[in-house]
Amino acid sequence: MYIPKNNEETDVSVIHSLLKSHPLGTWVTKIDGELNANHIPFLLDPDRGEHGTLIGHVARANPVWKSFSTTENSIIIFQGAETYISPSWYPSKHEHGRALPTWNYAVVHIHGIPHYIEDQDWLLNHLNVLTNEHESGQPLPWKVSDAPKDFTQNMLDGIVGIEIPIKKIVGKWKVNQNKQDTDKRGVVSNLLARQDSQSSEMASYVNRFVLSE
Amino acid sequence: MYIPKNNEETDVSVIHSLLKSHPLGTWVTKIDGELNANHIPFLLDPDRGEHGTLIGHVARANPVWKSFSTTENSIIIFQGAETYISPSWYPSKHEHGRALPTWNYAVVHIHGIPHYIEDQDWLLNHLNVLTNEHESGQPLPWKVSDAPKDFTQNMLDGIVGIEIPIKKIVGKWKVNQNKQDTDKRGVVSNLLARQDSQSSEMASYVNRFVLSE
Repeated sequence: MYIPKNNEETDVSVIHSLLKSHPLGTWVTKIDGELNANHIPFLLDPDRGEHGTLIGHVARANPVWKSFSTTENSIIIFQGAETYISPSWYPSKHEHGRALPTWNYAVVHIHGIPHYIEDQDWLLNHLNVLTNEHESGQPLPWKVSDAPKDFTQNMLDGIVGIEIPIKKIVGKWKVNQNKQDTDKRGVVSNLLARQDSQSSEMASYVNRFVLSE
Repeated sequence: MYIPKNNEETDVSVIHSLLKSHPLGTWVTKIDGELNANHIPFLLDPDRGEHGTLIGHVARANPVWKSFSTTENSIIIFQGAETYISPSWYPSKHEHGRALPTWNYAVVHIHGIPHYIEDQDWLLNHLNVLTNEHESGQPLPWKVSDAPKDFTQNMLDGIVGIEIPIKKIVGKWKVNQNKQDTDKRGVVSNLLARQDSQSSEMASYVNRFVLSE
């Protein structure tokens, strides 16, 4: 990925935080000579391997687990908030007109070679961890053990685990770092005025780079 | 991409509508033996080529335009709303407990071989069309011609156009089609209760598959 120096995110805690809040990864690998993408909610284990390990599962009926490349790295892409940025939001534009539209986004790219797991204990434990993670925000968190045992067994039979030890992880935060503070503040206030969660999230990304108060 | 039959979106107008509302594409190609992804706002010209043509631009400083594969298809991924779905939202779960969490999403995958364009008239026209598209929602739409001429020229010198004639386009709408209507309605009402734009968009995807009233 092309990353101008000021768009490079090097803070591991910021990168991990995006994976946690936007866990649906786009996993791209080559199958039969063609690029193939699947959309999988991943968990990150930051403590396994040099750069951590991605953990997820796919439907057993999905041929990807039998056919992903084991010789060339997969790329797994996580996308945070993304928004169009109008030049009208920069106060400086109204002074000198030297402004352009752009698109803001924050993304994490991970490279590594996956392997698959069919062990039933691993799968049950994985589903417990994944479910507890995503149900934690619910008023009455559902648990895997709430389902009838034969139903859970059927479910385990229908999936295959995926682990991807991370060889390389890069973050690009393209969030107006090249702008002066007054323009960043203009972006933040225009995004917040929209009152939707994606715009608010982008506003918080931009606001992090407002240097002076 | 693995697409169970009931998740396959075959309505071209629905697919094109996602590209229009979520134009930031993830363009993946192989460079120097490694998968490489860039995030580019694309326009679709539905009338050029058998399945239409994607049109965008990259920074001239981004090596991708000199190095994308011209022998193997790129894949370009467009992602619409995506949300975690709690089994607690299905009324039927409260009857028999046979329910699972899932992740809903709608995505479009496009395959094709790009080419690049350095012609200044093409680039200026492209920027006009792209800007007018994205500024149309602004109270006072900004125009490329609002910027000083030397500034616009600098901008044109700093970008390269990209066109991708579409060889294959597929849509996967994984939005609870396998559920009964009462469960779909439970998802819709829980999503709408969140009052954020992504959840509302997902609610509209799910609601499209509620068959009986």
